[in-house]
Formats: sequence, C-alpha cells, structure tokens
Amino acid sequence: MSDTPPTSDAPDLDIRPNEIAVKLPPATDAGLYFIGTIHTPWKTRAECPRRGDPEGPLCSIEIHEQWCQALTGIERHAKLQVLYWMHQSRRDLVIQAPRRSAVILGTFALRSPVRPNPIASSVVVLDRVEGATLYVRGLDCMDGTPVVDVKPERPVG
Amino acid sequence: MSDTPPTSDAPDLDIRPNEIAVKLPPATDAGLYFIGTIHTPWKTRAECPRRGDPEGPLCSIEIHEQWCQALTGIERHAKLQVLYWMHQSRRDLVIQAPRRSAVILGTFALRSPVRPNPIASSVVVLDRVEGATLYVRGLDCMDGTPVVDVKPERPVG
Repeated sequence: MSDTPPTSDAPDLDIRPNEIAVKLPPATDAGLYFIGTIHTPWKTRAECPRRGDPEGPLCSIEIHEQWCQALTGIERHAKLQVLYWMHQSRRDLVIQAPRRSAVILGTFALRSPVRPNPIASSVVVLDRVEGATLYVRGLDCMDGTPVVDVKPERPVG
Repeated sequence: MSDTPPTSDAPDLDIRPNEIAVKLPPATDAGLYFIGTIHTPWKTRAECPRRGDPEGPLCSIEIHEQWCQALTGIERHAKLQVLYWMHQSRRDLVIQAPRRSAVILGTFALRSPVRPNPIASSVVVLDRVEGATLYVRGLDCMDGTPVVDVKPERPVG
C-alpha cells in the first residue's frame, strides 16, 4: 500500500488497509467490442483530472473503421454520453478506502474506476466531427483508453 | 420487417428497409460480469415505457450475493446511475430507421438498444435498500434484465 499515485501505466493492483477483495467469478457473462480509442493529453493515471471539465482540453475519440457509419447524424447533438473501459483497474474490490476520504465505502457507493465492470460514463461537449474522429471536451481518462459506446446525452428528466 | 412491436421475449432480429448491418468482429475485447438482476412490471419489450419515469412504478435491483458488500453506504445517495445489458438486442446495425422517425441515423446518434455493446444507462431514484435489493424508480427495461454496474449519479457539471 502506498499513498503515492501510480506513475507508470502498469495495472494498479494496490490494496489499502481495510479494503476487501473477493474472488472473481470463474467466467464472464457477456463480451464487449472496443469500438474506438480515446486520445487525451494525460499519459498516466496520476496526471488525469479527478473529473472531466466541459471547458477542459480538447480530446479525441477515434472510432474504428468497422463502426464509422454508425456516426451518421451524430453532429446534431451538442452533448454526448461516452462509455469507456478503464482497462487498468482491478475488478475484485467490494470495499474501498478512497485516498481522500476517512470512511470506507462499498464499490457501488463510489464512482471509483475499481469495480467489477470498469465502465466509466462521462458526458462530453461535442466540438466537431472529422471523418471518424469526434473532438470533445469533458473527458478525464488516460490517453489510449478503449471506448465502448457513444450515444446522445439525455438530460435527466 | 414488421411494424408490429415484438410481443415475445425472443431476441429481436428484425431489420427494416434502409437499415445497414455489418459483420461483427471475430472476437470480443473484454468480458462483463452480470452483478445482479432487474425486476420490473414489464414482461415483454412491447410493454416497456419509452423511457424511465422517476415517478414511475417501483422496480427492484437484486445484487448477486458475491457483490453484496459493495452496496455498503449506497443508501446515502438519492440518485443512482444503473448500467444494464440489453441482452435481447442485435449488435450489428450501424444505420437504423427508428420506428417513429422519418430519418435514418447512425447507431451512435441514437439511444436505441441495438448497438455494438448493448449497455443502457439510466438514472434512478433510490427508494430504499433491503439486504441486497435496491428499490428504485425510473427504469424502463424488461423484467429479468442483467445489471452491469450501479454507481452514484454525478450531476452534469
């Protein structure tokens, strides 16, 4: 256990005092296709902002050629919801002791990247579309993060 | 192709005029664990509301025993984001012709359940927690839908 944020891009297997890990199920139940790759200015997890800023730096989402046509009409949406896969997070913690907090909490009571299915969800502002690349603001993840889904943001009603 | 909404719970393999399907990649890139099951009053897709209503019927999210501890502290959150797996949707359409629309659109410009990774995201109001079951309002999916993640809702900032 260390309070130093990881500075390499090796998977984070740290566990802190009071954290609880469980044995993962022997098999997964469904499979995901990575549909693209996110490019951001942050090369390590330590550099990533705590949360995305709609006025933050321009980032790009490169959609794999196979799925390009699925972008048709996306430019009509000012805000998009992006789901991405936090590929370097461990998946077996049920209780976590967040670095900046005095309490321990269950994984589902946190937005930590460490969770059984490390899917992050962010709302981004669409700046423009160029070919199969979306230029957006509001992401908070490392350069190279795989994308799982992009859809129009639906305001909470 | 038919305009009649499906009434069984068989997978929906319909394709409408002007819709375009692509060949799916030969393998998936990551695996998901189903962490629980959603219970709603809707037994078929045809009965499901078009979108969840925070004042709609009480639904429940039963978390599998393996992940129970991960609910610790969740009761402090009034609103949760739920990610679930629309297990009956085809995954290969890039262009869709929505039933109620005159235009054709790319899959990523729609919130249709038909998408490469059929993950839905809803914001729900938490009514109460009983053991490993969350009682919530605001879901729109079929009874029996697998859950992929639950996290505190973060207001769009």
